[in-house]
Amino acid sequence: MPAKLEIVSQNRCFEGSVIKYEHQSEVLKCTMRFNVYLPDSKEPLPVLYFLSGLTCTEDNFIQKAGALRYLSDKKIALVCPDTSPRGVTITGQDDAWDFGSGAGFYVDATEAPWSAHYQMYSYVIRELPGLIHAHLAVDPDRASIMGHSMGGHGALISALKNPGRYRSVSVLAAICHPTQCPWGIKAFSGYLGATNRSCWEAYDATELARSYRGPQLPILLDQGDQDVFLKQKQLLPQHFLLAAENGPGRQQLAIENRMRPGFDHSYFYIQTFIEDHIQFHARHLLEASD
Amino acid sequence: MPAKLEIVSQNRCFEGSVIKYEHQSEVLKCTMRFNVYLPDSKEPLPVLYFLSGLTCTEDNFIQKAGALRYLSDKKIALVCPDTSPRGVTITGQDDAWDFGSGAGFYVDATEAPWSAHYQMYSYVIRELPGLIHAHLAVDPDRASIMGHSMGGHGALISALKNPGRYRSVSVLAAICHPTQCPWGIKAFSGYLGATNRSCWEAYDATELARSYRGPQLPILLDQGDQDVFLKQKQLLPQHFLLAAENGPGRQQLAIENRMRPGFDHSYFYIQTFIEDHIQFHARHLLEASD
Repeated sequence: MPAKLEIVSQNRCFEGSVIKYEHQSEVLKCTMRFNVYLPDSKEPLPVLYFLSGLTCTEDNFIQKAGALRYLSDKKIALVCPDTSPRGVTITGQDDAWDFGSGAGFYVDATEAPWSAHYQMYSYVIRELPGLIHAHLAVDPDRASIMGHSMGGHGALISALKNPGRYRSVSVLAAICHPTQCPWGIKAFSGYLGATNRSCWEAYDATELARSYRGPQLPILLDQGDQDVFLKQKQLLPQHFLLAAENGPGRQQLAIENRMRPGFDHSYFYIQTFIEDHIQFHARHLLEASD
Repeated sequence: MPAKLEIVSQNRCFEGSVIKYEHQSEVLKCTMRFNVYLPDSKEPLPVLYFLSGLTCTEDNFIQKAGALRYLSDKKIALVCPDTSPRGVTITGQDDAWDFGSGAGFYVDATEAPWSAHYQMYSYVIRELPGLIHAHLAVDPDRASIMGHSMGGHGALISALKNPGRYRSVSVLAAICHPTQCPWGIKAFSGYLGATNRSCWEAYDATELARSYRGPQLPILLDQGDQDVFLKQKQLLPQHFLLAAENGPGRQQLAIENRMRPGFDHSYFYIQTFIEDHIQFHARHLLEASD
């Protein structure tokens, strides 16, 4: 029997409803919340997962991105999970904004004390889709994934580690090479152990692109050229592009690369280009199934 | 010499920029912040003021309403002030979410201790437009105003008390008859004194509509029919409609009344209908000047 979902709140928006759910997560061993947008439909809906960035919760994207208008038009469901386990007590979890609470980094931690709860990769890839498919009228064969910043990293590794699982992936200001940037090195050292580099590479989009051998995967890579974190070499999209272009999967990784002059890392950047992303996913989610 | 504005932050959004300013308010006697959206333009821009609701700041609307796309298209500037004086110390100011901080109610308080700072009507009507005209490339002759909930009350009284000042006014889930609803009675009792009813009526949209004798004022009145505060009789839009229809200004108050089935009081409701509001104001702001 699938785990229980409780409705926390429900709001009408465009031709559909925003629903906040709460549930006991078996994987994370705590109470979690996520938001869903469900356009009105008599048919099962294709579904787009959105993974959020550092310090965010399940609310940022659904409240601030201005995406729901386009999802309503296209009749695509949206699922927005939180960014870390919540309501747990781990010493040090709230000491930094880029590690611990709000910064799960979409990996399955192997290091104590984090490994007891910080299993965000399994949560996003396995437990959450299981709940969605069990409780909501979505079509499990039509899923895509996107994300922002840390969530862009999460979206890219989710797609690259699970060939064929997602029809398309798009990212905004993604952390593209976490094993080579300060945020990623800090997070992977803490969650995966400072010395276990091969384990790190299994969660690194650039390393995964270097060896991708799956089916066709359309990727939309979006970046503002005035993003302070791009300048600080936290994001490194050029590393990802180079790896994809030179790997065995270069024919399969179909990358649309968009550099946006003048734009930064904020939700004002996201809301400007969100229509492009929804249209991109709609092209792949709404085409006839194989 | 106009007072100084400091830029706190600046973000590119669509074809324009969001700018957060800080300044010393002479009227409120404290440091205030407000947000502006300025579409790229070589010409002075028409300007739309947005007044926010209880518990809000200058950020809610600009971040969550999804309005900037339409303002960019139409080349209309947006100004979003805060909802109360900030950084002041008044006993009791943080005891309730519907009075004090975040709940200035757009009146000029006459009662101590509030009167020392809580002069939000003069701030919104006089000091803020003065700053905008002195520092930004806007056209003072083309201004409109809108608001949500408490800010809907603020927008309606601003327009009705200053005939000819605004080309149009629109409100979402506005508090339309504050002298007759629990929120308004609490606020007016505190800021204006429990016994001074004639002073209350000078800030009540329904009472002002009952006696309006100004020029033509296009009004868009928007309301969700599942709004819990409508059911609790906090909003009373039917009182406003009745007063306007029966007053001496019934030919001048051109009200478009929209009831939205299924919608509540939230920003999910606002983002669904914000395009209608921007189009409404654009019709009045972009037509040739008299």
